Amino acid sequence: MKKGYRPLNNREINITDKLFGHYVDMVAEVVLPYQWNILNDRVEGAERSHCLENFRIAAGEKTGEFYGTVFQDTDVYKWLEAVAYCMESGKDGRFSFLADEVIDLIARAQQPDGYLNTYYTIVKPEGRWTNLLEGHELYSAGYLIEAAVAYFNATGKRRLLDVAIRFADLISVTFGPREGQKHGYPGHQEIELALVRLYRVTGEKKYLDTARYFIDQRGREPNYFLSEIANRNGDGIFPEFRNYDLKYSQAHVPPVKQRSIEGHAVRAMYLCSAMADLALECDDEALKEACVALWESTTERRMFITGGLGSSGHLERFTTDYDLPNDRTYCETCASVGLMMFGQRMASLTGDAEYYEAVERALCNTVLAGINSDGLKYFYVNPLEVWPAVCLPATSLAHVKPVRQEWFSVACCPTNVARTLSSLGQYIYAADDEALYIHQFISSQAKTEVDGQPVSLSMEADILRTGRVSIRTDGPIRLRLRIPRYADQPAFTLNGEPVEPLIVQKYARFDLQSSAEIVLSIDLKPRWVAADERVRADAGKAALMLGPFVYCLEETDNGENLTAVSILPEAEVQPSSGLAELPGDMPRLEYKGYRVSHNLDALYGQPLYEVKDVRLAAVPYCLWCNRTPGEMLIWQRVRF
Amino acid sequence: MKKGYRPLNNREINITDKLFGHYVDMVAEVVLPYQWNILNDRVEGAERSHCLENFRIAAGEKTGEFYGTVFQDTDVYKWLEAVAYCMESGKDGRFSFLADEVIDLIARAQQPDGYLNTYYTIVKPEGRWTNLLEGHELYSAGYLIEAAVAYFNATGKRRLLDVAIRFADLISVTFGPREGQKHGYPGHQEIELALVRLYRVTGEKKYLDTARYFIDQRGREPNYFLSEIANRNGDGIFPEFRNYDLKYSQAHVPPVKQRSIEGHAVRAMYLCSAMADLALECDDEALKEACVALWESTTERRMFITGGLGSSGHLERFTTDYDLPNDRTYCETCASVGLMMFGQRMASLTGDAEYYEAVERALCNTVLAGINSDGLKYFYVNPLEVWPAVCLPATSLAHVKPVRQEWFSVACCPTNVARTLSSLGQYIYAADDEALYIHQFISSQAKTEVDGQPVSLSMEADILRTGRVSIRTDGPIRLRLRIPRYADQPAFTLNGEPVEPLIVQKYARFDLQSSAEIVLSIDLKPRWVAADERVRADAGKAALMLGPFVYCLEETDNGENLTAVSILPEAEVQPSSGLAELPGDMPRLEYKGYRVSHNLDALYGQPLYEVKDVRLAAVPYCLWCNRTPGEMLIWQRVRF
Repeated sequence: MKKGYRPLNNREINITDKLFGHYVDMVAEVVLPYQWNILNDRVEGAERSHCLENFRIAAGEKTGEFYGTVFQDTDVYKWLEAVAYCMESGKDGRFSFLADEVIDLIARAQQPDGYLNTYYTIVKPEGRWTNLLEGHELYSAGYLIEAAVAYFNATGKRRLLDVAIRFADLISVTFGPREGQKHGYPGHQEIELALVRLYRVTGEKKYLDTARYFIDQRGREPNYFLSEIANRNGDGIFPEFRNYDLKYSQAHVPPVKQRSIEGHAVRAMYLCSAMADLALECDDEALKEACVALWESTTERRMFITGGLGSSGHLERFTTDYDLPNDRTYCETCASVGLMMFGQRMASLTGDAEYYEAVERALCNTVLAGINSDGLKYFYVNPLEVWPAVCLPATSLAHVKPVRQEWFSVACCPTNVARTLSSLGQYIYAADDEALYIHQFISSQAKTEVDGQPVSLSMEADILRTGRVSIRTDGPIRLRLRIPRYADQPAFTLNGEPVEPLIVQKYARFDLQSSAEIVLSIDLKPRWVAADERVRADAGKAALMLGPFVYCLEETDNGENLTAVSILPEAEVQPSSGLAELPGDMPRLEYKGYRVSHNLDALYGQPLYEVKDVRLAAVPYCLWCNRTPGEMLIWQRVRF
Repeated sequence: MKKGYRPLNNREINITDKLFGHYVDMVAEVVLPYQWNILNDRVEGAERSHCLENFRIAAGEKTGEFYGTVFQDTDVYKWLEAVAYCMESGKDGRFSFLADEVIDLIARAQQPDGYLNTYYTIVKPEGRWTNLLEGHELYSAGYLIEAAVAYFNATGKRRLLDVAIRFADLISVTFGPREGQKHGYPGHQEIELALVRLYRVTGEKKYLDTARYFIDQRGREPNYFLSEIANRNGDGIFPEFRNYDLKYSQAHVPPVKQRSIEGHAVRAMYLCSAMADLALECDDEALKEACVALWESTTERRMFITGGLGSSGHLERFTTDYDLPNDRTYCETCASVGLMMFGQRMASLTGDAEYYEAVERALCNTVLAGINSDGLKYFYVNPLEVWPAVCLPATSLAHVKPVRQEWFSVACCPTNVARTLSSLGQYIYAADDEALYIHQFISSQAKTEVDGQPVSLSMEADILRTGRVSIRTDGPIRLRLRIPRYADQPAFTLNGEPVEPLIVQKYARFDLQSSAEIVLSIDLKPRWVAADERVRADAGKAALMLGPFVYCLEETDNGENLTAVSILPEAEVQPSSGLAELPGDMPRLEYKGYRVSHNLDALYGQPLYEVKDVRLAAVPYCLWCNRTPGEMLIWQRVRF
């Protein structure tokens, strides 16, 4: 069996893309300094973080009280992970000093036995591991490990890695099947995939075994969480977890038996990512079968067109097949990051580029939308339809913010977006012993080794404007180029001559003996897309897409009350400029539409319907709310 | 100034209507015995009530623990109120014995100083009046008083009235403006209108003064609730009340200054009902002005077409103007009962029958829908669009039940519907010194006195089938007959001769010197109604109505996936029978519609839209879910 893909690291890649390059550079130049100020509580008006202060208190260097949620530590871990990626890409050395200082602080907060968690150390030292369901100790440990691996890979410095190893060693002896060990597993998955990463960098098999144990043990009878809840006698952390639904944390049956994606969307994606990692590392067909089924459940029945996941605003979770409500949904940014992680691993596990369809969908829509184009504000929740007036506190739509926020009391998303964008290259390029794989049309250069031989290439992609992707290779190379669904009639030239490469598992295969230029031409027109008609919310509606990008209507271009608008799918859609102030020089899409008036003088009455022609202008969803805030709508009524 | 209407009591009215007569009789014959079993925890599978057991424990006759919500007592109070109405109408004497027994039990649970509340007596005797915001002591007292007044009116027995008076006396000395009195007011309004009722039956002005005090004091600075919250140091009853929003209980500004209806819908309606009562009793123009504005805010900007109120599933509350989402709404049955109460009082205050538009709307749609046609199951939440598969526990739609329930852990609605239907006559007939008023076309007989003179009439109404209302009067009478908006071209005959009565404030006026027959003919056709186009959820949609009844599509008649259906408003709508198994012999409405298919083989893709003709059949919303359960939809897409 093929042992999966090795994603390229930032030393091997340089992203020059107009759109993505902007975001990647922005993370180093704007986002990390901003988030550093946030972590130090220096941004006025933003939610308080207190994250570093918690570490100082836990280290005994300051007095004071813990502040924040139980997993507040993860904010700095994810920040450190993003810093590591930026350092690895050579884009920013400014953080080297700060990062080392923070790492020292983290090390000083570690307990003598390796335990590391500021909440439990400060607030409940006797409570370690007593509330796996809610306490997030293993979740936080996972992000520590991920940061440590990334920092070691980027810098070769072992300080944080050693901290992580000491904690991972403690975890490996604390949890396991043997007598005296705890037979539990995390309430929020993350440690599993982190331990696989740690195994890959250290070669220590016990980390893989512990990750595997967490997955195997999960959801077994008698249920660990139920005994834990019984033992806690009502003493809990999150009031919303009363009457706990085991599906919420995918602990209702063992993961290997799960076929329907359930519960909290981020937990589910992190679980599936770890399952795919383990299926690969352990060559486990049963786990792979579960992964394939869960992927299909996710992407064919429970995913929004934006790659958003989690239909219920309450508890941020999956609900049921085809329940994809546009306004009240959750679609947490982190869940789409998780979908990228899961898809990347599925492609690695199966060698099938098809899995990158959803990775690209999540990246180009929800993940990018999660961050302002200036890097200073963030969406946590990513609805597909927004009417700002109804997003009110203490109501059903309290979770929907009609504009991006400076920070959150639970701030998982901003740092998750930062680490994802700063390591974006891993989603573009991968290698194995056979070939170099290209998964996204994002302008960049790559230079690595395949089977010990140096390979190098430069890609210029401009699919939205010209439909053209040019790849110049330097020397011999075996190249596998993902052909996405929207490129339904791809035309290739090799050094100017038309060629028809073999396409296997959605990869166009090129085995080149010397430097060459491959040009892919896609006839990329704006297209109206519908949802399966069982999606009640989208019946008789269509969404406009251009390549992987979902477009939306914003109030600033189209006036208020967007649900009154309808369209004819056969109307000509004209690309135009007009978004010059936004990154990527992406086209606006203009077309003729219709707007209905009811002409009533009371709340209810017999209408005089009037349908007027209007000119509509749609913009990429990923850039929405970067101009004048207001209403937004993706799914538009089709006029029949 | 005219001193308002006197609603007729059940001794003066006999309801014979095919539809409403069924429900009214059913309350006496089925609902009250069923609810008696519920109150005694004898219905297997239903939520536990424990209501009477709490009284036994509070009376010291049993040991055990309090069970239920803090206002569990009100279940038996409202049951008693309904029993009283049934006894008054002579429809049921079977409950006389049980009612007297229950009243004795209640009396025994009353504390020596008059205080009466089983939660505080059993659980927190030292906590009396310390948590007005959440404790519901005054709310529960209000229902006790209402039951006591109704029971006294029905039977002449003073036992419960004396209990209520002792408690009201305690409340009157406990609360007020003087030093040593508490300057608070209830977290949930109800006591205010109850005290007005007690004042009306006893003539004791102190009850009116206390009611007035509660309304005057509410929302004044410094805010009582905020000080109370501060004094409680985090000790609270309802976790969802953390970060308390004063608007939730209309305590953000004094009611007389309020112009927009806010917060919890039932609280708001009970507040407004009391304000209208007080505006009348105290001849208070400022309070009346507030009432008029709040009525308009409610019915012209925040009311569903069904007379449902409360757009947010979370906290059961109003949100903002024109936010009327059909699927996730709350629309609590009790809120529509409250709207009937408020409208009835506004008509009494102003002499304008226009206020009965919304009373009729609430009654004929949400309130009737709140109870199964067999009386044994109930809706608490009344959405206008239901897809049962997505009404899942621990999600945003957990509050929506796709079928009526046997009981609820918070069971305000079933008993509220029972007391409303068993006193329905008060919404049909009213009198003052000038005339007898008819507010609903509900077949019935009435016999009362107007200005000392006996008057009597018999009404046969069949507006849905024939559009005909015949009123035979016995002897001289001054009659005021409400002309609803749907009767836009009313034709009258008097003893067979066409007449054109004067219409003032939406009343047709008849001053008759002798027995006569008035016949009103309405050209009542099914009509398509639209919402103000600012209602985003209903843009480009229409709802089918027949008279005051809103119609809906059910899955059992029209197949699943109802959002895929569209209609042409000009299509002929044909009334047909077919609902013979349901009360009222109401017509089904049939018409041609269209159903769109997308013809996709993936969750998202380029559709092949196909629009097929279908035959649609709509049924009255008030009767939905009385046959095979399934999807339901009121607002249908209009095809332009």
